[in-house]
Amino acid sequence: MERQQVLHMKGGVGEESYAKNSVIQTTYLSKSMSVLWQALQDLASSNLPESVTIAELGCSSGPNTLFAVTEITSIICKRCRELGRPPPDFLVYLNDLPANDFNTVFKSLPDFHQKMQEKNGPEFQPMYICGVPGSFYDRIFSSKCLHIVHSSSSLHWLSQVPPELSDKENPVINKGKIFLSKTSPPAVINAYKTQFQRDFSSFLKFRSAEVIPEGRMVLSFRARRTPDPTPEESCLLWDYLGEAFQDLVAQGLIEEEKLDTYNTPYYEPYTEDIKAEVEREGSFTLDRMEINVAPWDGVNGGNKYERATTAENMAKAIRAVNESMIESHFGPEAEIMDRLFQRFIEILAADTREVEHVGVVVSLIRK
Amino acid sequence: MERQQVLHMKGGVGEESYAKNSVIQTTYLSKSMSVLWQALQDLASSNLPESVTIAELGCSSGPNTLFAVTEITSIICKRCRELGRPPPDFLVYLNDLPANDFNTVFKSLPDFHQKMQEKNGPEFQPMYICGVPGSFYDRIFSSKCLHIVHSSSSLHWLSQVPPELSDKENPVINKGKIFLSKTSPPAVINAYKTQFQRDFSSFLKFRSAEVIPEGRMVLSFRARRTPDPTPEESCLLWDYLGEAFQDLVAQGLIEEEKLDTYNTPYYEPYTEDIKAEVEREGSFTLDRMEINVAPWDGVNGGNKYERATTAENMAKAIRAVNESMIESHFGPEAEIMDRLFQRFIEILAADTREVEHVGVVVSLIRK
Repeated sequence: MERQQVLHMKGGVGEESYAKNSVIQTTYLSKSMSVLWQALQDLASSNLPESVTIAELGCSSGPNTLFAVTEITSIICKRCRELGRPPPDFLVYLNDLPANDFNTVFKSLPDFHQKMQEKNGPEFQPMYICGVPGSFYDRIFSSKCLHIVHSSSSLHWLSQVPPELSDKENPVINKGKIFLSKTSPPAVINAYKTQFQRDFSSFLKFRSAEVIPEGRMVLSFRARRTPDPTPEESCLLWDYLGEAFQDLVAQGLIEEEKLDTYNTPYYEPYTEDIKAEVEREGSFTLDRMEINVAPWDGVNGGNKYERATTAENMAKAIRAVNESMIESHFGPEAEIMDRLFQRFIEILAADTREVEHVGVVVSLIRK
Repeated sequence: MERQQVLHMKGGVGEESYAKNSVIQTTYLSKSMSVLWQALQDLASSNLPESVTIAELGCSSGPNTLFAVTEITSIICKRCRELGRPPPDFLVYLNDLPANDFNTVFKSLPDFHQKMQEKNGPEFQPMYICGVPGSFYDRIFSSKCLHIVHSSSSLHWLSQVPPELSDKENPVINKGKIFLSKTSPPAVINAYKTQFQRDFSSFLKFRSAEVIPEGRMVLSFRARRTPDPTPEESCLLWDYLGEAFQDLVAQGLIEEEKLDTYNTPYYEPYTEDIKAEVEREGSFTLDRMEINVAPWDGVNGGNKYERATTAENMAKAIRAVNESMIESHFGPEAEIMDRLFQRFIEILAADTREVEHVGVVVSLIRK
C-alpha cells in the first residue's frame, strides 16, 4: 500500500492520540514563530489582496493544526490596523494525507471561528477553511493561488521508503535498524539522502506552480546541524526503537526478515543540503534559515520528570506518529504494539544519554 | 446544541451507514442528471475559464458524494473535445456540516482520481478536491469563486427546527408528531413554512455572493407538487415514525414531553413556493424546474421485494439519516433506536398504502 494510504498521526482526542501527544511538535512550532512573524511583516506591508490564501501543509489533527493559521491571521490583522487598512478575508487550506483525521479537525471549527472573532474583533472577516487531502509531494492546489504556505513537523517525512531498501529482488539491507544508524551501510545512507533530495525538489517544484510571485513559505522540520549523516541527535531514538524491535525478534514475536524490510520514510537533512536544493530548484529565494533546538526531554512540555516518566511520554509521542506504519507493515494481528513500546521505555529509561532534538525553520520567497 | 453540530448522515461504510443506505437519494440524483446536462451544455459552450470551480453542497459520505462531480467533469470534458478545446482543470469543493464523515470521503479519493484519469483520458487535468465543513445557510466560500453549484437531497433540511416549536417558554406543540402531519395545528404548519422561506432565501443570498455571473446552480431536493401542506407523499413516513415514537411513550421507554419537543428540521416546499422565493431574492433566474417521482419502494433500488423487506430497507434508510438527531435529543443512553425502528418496520409492513416520493430539480443561472 502506498505511504499516503498508510501514514497518519493517531487520530481522535484520546489519551493515545497525536492530539494529546504532540507537545514536542508544539515546541518547534512556537520556536518558528519569530521567523514567520518577520516573513509576514514584509508581506503585509506590501499590497495585500482583499482575500489572502494560506495553506497549512501536514496539518494533522490536534492543537498544532490551527496554531500557525491563528498566528498568521492575527499578525496580518494587527499589521493592517497599524497601517490603517481593513483586514483581508482569509481562505485557509488545511492539507494532510487522506488518512489524516480531518473529522476531528472539522468538528473543532465552529468553536475556532468563534474564538477568532473574539480575538480579532468585529472587523475580522469570515475565514473560509477547507480540508485538502493529498500528498504535498504532488500538485494539490490550483496554479498561482497561494499567498502563504506554512508547514511544521512534516517535511522530514519522505514520500516513500527509499526504493533501494524495499526492492523485493535485491534490497539494500539496514540490518536490525528501522532508520539510519551508525552501523547503516553507505548504500542505505545514500538511498535516504537521494530520496530526500528527490522529494524536497518535488515539493519546491509543485509549490512553485501554486504560490504567487512574492508569496511566502515558512517551513519548519527536523534537520541536522552537522554533515555527519548519523549523529545521535538524529538517530538515537530510532536506535532505541530498533533495539526494541530486535528484542521482539529474539522473543519470536516477529520474524527477522519482517524487521529487516521495515524502514521509516523519514529523513533529517543537513542544513547545507536544504540550501543546496533550494538553489538547485531555483523558484524560491532563501530569506532566512534558523536552527531550533529542543531539550532531550522536550516531550514533557517544559516540566521536569524522572527519566522513566520522560521515557513513557516519549514512547507515547513516537507511537502516535509511527503506529499506522508499523501496523501496516507487521499487520494488526501481530499485537506487538504494547510490547514494542514497553521495551522502548525500558531501553530509554536504562540509558543515561540526553541528546537534544534539532530542527530548522526556513523562510522562502517565491521569485 | 446547534443543528450543525448534530445532523450528519451515519458515517463509515458499514451495514448501517448512509453510504450503504442511500439508494433513494441515488435515484433522485440520477433523475436530475438530464437537467444538469442541459445546464452544462450552455455553460461549456460559452467561454470556460482555464480552471472551473465546482461546489457540491451537502456531499455526505457514500456513492452519491462524487456522483455529480463525476458527471459534471465528464460532460465538460466531452463538450471541450467536441469544440476542439483543451479541458479545463477542476477545483472541487465538497461541502457538508462539520460532523459529516469527511474521513471516509477523503480515503476514497486516491482511487477516485485514478478512475477519473482512466475515464477521461490522458488529457484530463489534475482535479483539486477540498472538503469544506460548514452550513450552506452561511457564507462558506470566497466571493465570486464558484462556476457550478450542485446539491442533491440536502436542501429539504432546514437550518434548525422552527424556533416556535422549540421555544422553551411557550412552545407550539405538534402533539405526538415529529414532522408535519394532517393533525398538525396551523401554527406548526406556518412555522415550518416560514423557516423554509428564511433558509432558502439565505441560501440564495449567500450563494449569490459566491457564484460568478452566468454561473449555474442545479439543486435537487424533496418537494411537493401540491399546495396542500400535508399530503401523504410528504408526511406518511414521518407519521409512521411518529407512531413508533408514541408506542415507545406508551411503553414508558421515553417521556411524552420529550417526544412533544422533538421535531425534525425538514421541509418539503411546494414547487410554486420555490419559484416565489427565487423571484423574491432576485439574484438568480429560474431556468428550469422539473418534478421527479420515485416509486414508493424506491429504496429497493428497482428490485421488487415483499412489503416486510421494503419496510426493513426503508427503516435502514431513515435511520441512517435521522439517528444523529434522535440520539442528540433523547440521549444515547435512551437505547431506543433498535426498538423504535423495529416498531417502524411493523407499522409500515402492516399498512397497505403505496405512496410515491416526490422531488424537484431546479436549474438556476446567476444574473
